Amino acid sequence: MYTRNGPLTHIRVLDLSQTLAGPFATTILSDLGAEIIKIEKPGTGDQTRHFSPYKNGESHYFLSINRNKKSVVINLKEEEGKKALWDLIKVSDVIIEKFRPETMTKLGFSHEKIKKQKENIIICSISAFGKTGPLGNKAGYDIIVQALSGLMSLTGEPNDPVRAGIPIADLVGGLYGAISILSALIKKEKSNKGLIIDESLLDNMVSLLGYFSGSYFMTEENPQAVGDKHPFIAPYGKYKAKDGFMVLAIYTEKFWNLFTKAINKIEWADDSRFKLNENRILNENELNFEIEQILQERSIEEWTIIFNKYGVPSAPILDVKGILNYPQVKSRNLIKEIEHKQSGNIKFIGTPIKFTNEKLNNNNPPPLLGEHTEDVLKNILKYDKNKIIKILNEY
Amino acid sequence: MYTRNGPLTHIRVLDLSQTLAGPFATTILSDLGAEIIKIEKPGTGDQTRHFSPYKNGESHYFLSINRNKKSVVINLKEEEGKKALWDLIKVSDVIIEKFRPETMTKLGFSHEKIKKQKENIIICSISAFGKTGPLGNKAGYDIIVQALSGLMSLTGEPNDPVRAGIPIADLVGGLYGAISILSALIKKEKSNKGLIIDESLLDNMVSLLGYFSGSYFMTEENPQAVGDKHPFIAPYGKYKAKDGFMVLAIYTEKFWNLFTKAINKIEWADDSRFKLNENRILNENELNFEIEQILQERSIEEWTIIFNKYGVPSAPILDVKGILNYPQVKSRNLIKEIEHKQSGNIKFIGTPIKFTNEKLNNNNPPPLLGEHTEDVLKNILKYDKNKIIKILNEY
Repeated sequence: MYTRNGPLTHIRVLDLSQTLAGPFATTILSDLGAEIIKIEKPGTGDQTRHFSPYKNGESHYFLSINRNKKSVVINLKEEEGKKALWDLIKVSDVIIEKFRPETMTKLGFSHEKIKKQKENIIICSISAFGKTGPLGNKAGYDIIVQALSGLMSLTGEPNDPVRAGIPIADLVGGLYGAISILSALIKKEKSNKGLIIDESLLDNMVSLLGYFSGSYFMTEENPQAVGDKHPFIAPYGKYKAKDGFMVLAIYTEKFWNLFTKAINKIEWADDSRFKLNENRILNENELNFEIEQILQERSIEEWTIIFNKYGVPSAPILDVKGILNYPQVKSRNLIKEIEHKQSGNIKFIGTPIKFTNEKLNNNNPPPLLGEHTEDVLKNILKYDKNKIIKILNEY
Repeated sequence: MYTRNGPLTHIRVLDLSQTLAGPFATTILSDLGAEIIKIEKPGTGDQTRHFSPYKNGESHYFLSINRNKKSVVINLKEEEGKKALWDLIKVSDVIIEKFRPETMTKLGFSHEKIKKQKENIIICSISAFGKTGPLGNKAGYDIIVQALSGLMSLTGEPNDPVRAGIPIADLVGGLYGAISILSALIKKEKSNKGLIIDESLLDNMVSLLGYFSGSYFMTEENPQAVGDKHPFIAPYGKYKAKDGFMVLAIYTEKFWNLFTKAINKIEWADDSRFKLNENRILNENELNFEIEQILQERSIEEWTIIFNKYGVPSAPILDVKGILNYPQVKSRNLIKEIEHKQSGNIKFIGTPIKFTNEKLNNNNPPPLLGEHTEDVLKNILKYDKNKIIKILNEY
């Protein structure tokens, strides 16, 4: 049996989305205790069930993003399936979907019809560009949104744009999806009104431009990528040690003084080239060259120990293996290990949300395709045996 | 007067944070209607008030991230100031802070003491690494968290890590902060319990590793950066047109067929080098070389028109100016223009959260330092004139 605890145990969410943005939103809600009923299509289910590598037939991708959910397979193109979805809508608080804009209507589930059946339901529609505007009906993908949003233009060296190596537009879509649904739940609990959310992955990413947009609005100068350096702080960014790169972030003169001690260059405190940040910015290339000469004398690990001792803001650049085995991450108990019916022991990264006076402990395995169809039809919808068999036979 | 509408109009938040992560969380809550009382220190206030460029003395950075808030200046090191904060705590629902771990206690506002004064208050403490673990007491900055989290190692080309060009660790901190506070508000409304949130920027970013961690846990192979290309899809990523870079994302054979038509290379549909994605991946360098030869014949704008006509997933890589003037962003009404007391007309990017059946319209100017001290002391705390003058004189 699935265990659920946390602030949302009284909430039921129908998840009609697949891939990443929608499922990430519902994973967050599940971590907070909500019951998530994931509707999947017969035969194939969520497309991320089919991305290698697999363990006993289960995809790493699907397993990484679908803990705590119940998988219900129904055919939304058949009458029995449609009827079951209508019955589920009647007993749910939230619907989340990321179909092409017209698909819900074609299937017979327009927002208007849903609202007629269940006035106070919350509907969250996620799409690349939202429901309105010149691109309102277009599909889009993470890299398309990253490219349009300005993020790529600001990442890497000037005139050589780079995308973030994680699908950040989809992930931020999950975060904003959770925020908008949670706020709508508060509205519903206060006034019984069901809000309809028109979420745009592009709008989300644009909202993260913050001070870059502030600077543009104020000066009409277009912010440029600055690589790993900082436009007005030095030393800052990526530096090469003996065995690879690490980062430094010498924000203040206090940190600069500690840094000169840590690298045994206290004479720089009186060096007119480097004395103050304004001098260091003017002589940045020379400064960075000299720093790299020194850093290459020791390993990242050695420098990290030294910089920590002196209180210099610095860090190794960890890879995935490095961070998943990092003492801080281990001690925060972020990585969970559970038993999965098909794949045996599996590990995943659990919720980063921590309450010190209420432990979240929702670490149930991701579902097999259709694992909970019978359970949900029988125990939530109270369907009789014949009806259940008919639906189960549809896939 | 400030106008507030949306799901959170009944919520009051005391914001003791500064810079980015905390203020971004409270900006999101303010967009949803919450009343935000920003506590600032005498003289200087939020440090982002002092980052150039400025307009009539107001910083682009501060203006971009502090709309809708009330600024109250009190001196937390003086008795009168402490007393005012205690009185504000008694009438608030949420406190958010990003002090060094020991600072709240030193100031006399330990979690325990706050809870004794107001049992059901929600406290959100944001820090780089959380309150526990070997780094639990350390300070950290956006680039430090980006470096540790694995994000940099996955961005850019292999063995040449790059940070995301926007302060994504701080911004994701704001998003997760809003999520955890909203869920705690739901808990409070159901059971009158006030949750205490121990938010770690590093934990947040690690939680975004999703399928990269899933793949590592399954195979023990360490995921590598893949630049702008895709490990198993081609053509994909950044390509050079006549006047700069654009992106392509040819996820399916259907898109490939449309793409060959769009670039007038239908013979590639039968070319054994490029026929199927598996062939294209094997011959990726040759494919990318040939595509760039063709793309360099036309401008990004010309190709965008052609690709849109054929339904090929593609996009220009827009810079900040480009996206802020992009027709889709304009039509979504994301950019707001308001009157600011000091700076005249200012623009900012408003909330990306859109409800189709309830308009959010919280576009009040960011506050001057201490603009609302008198108002809050008088109208919320009902202090008398002498007491108010005493506090106003403290800064």
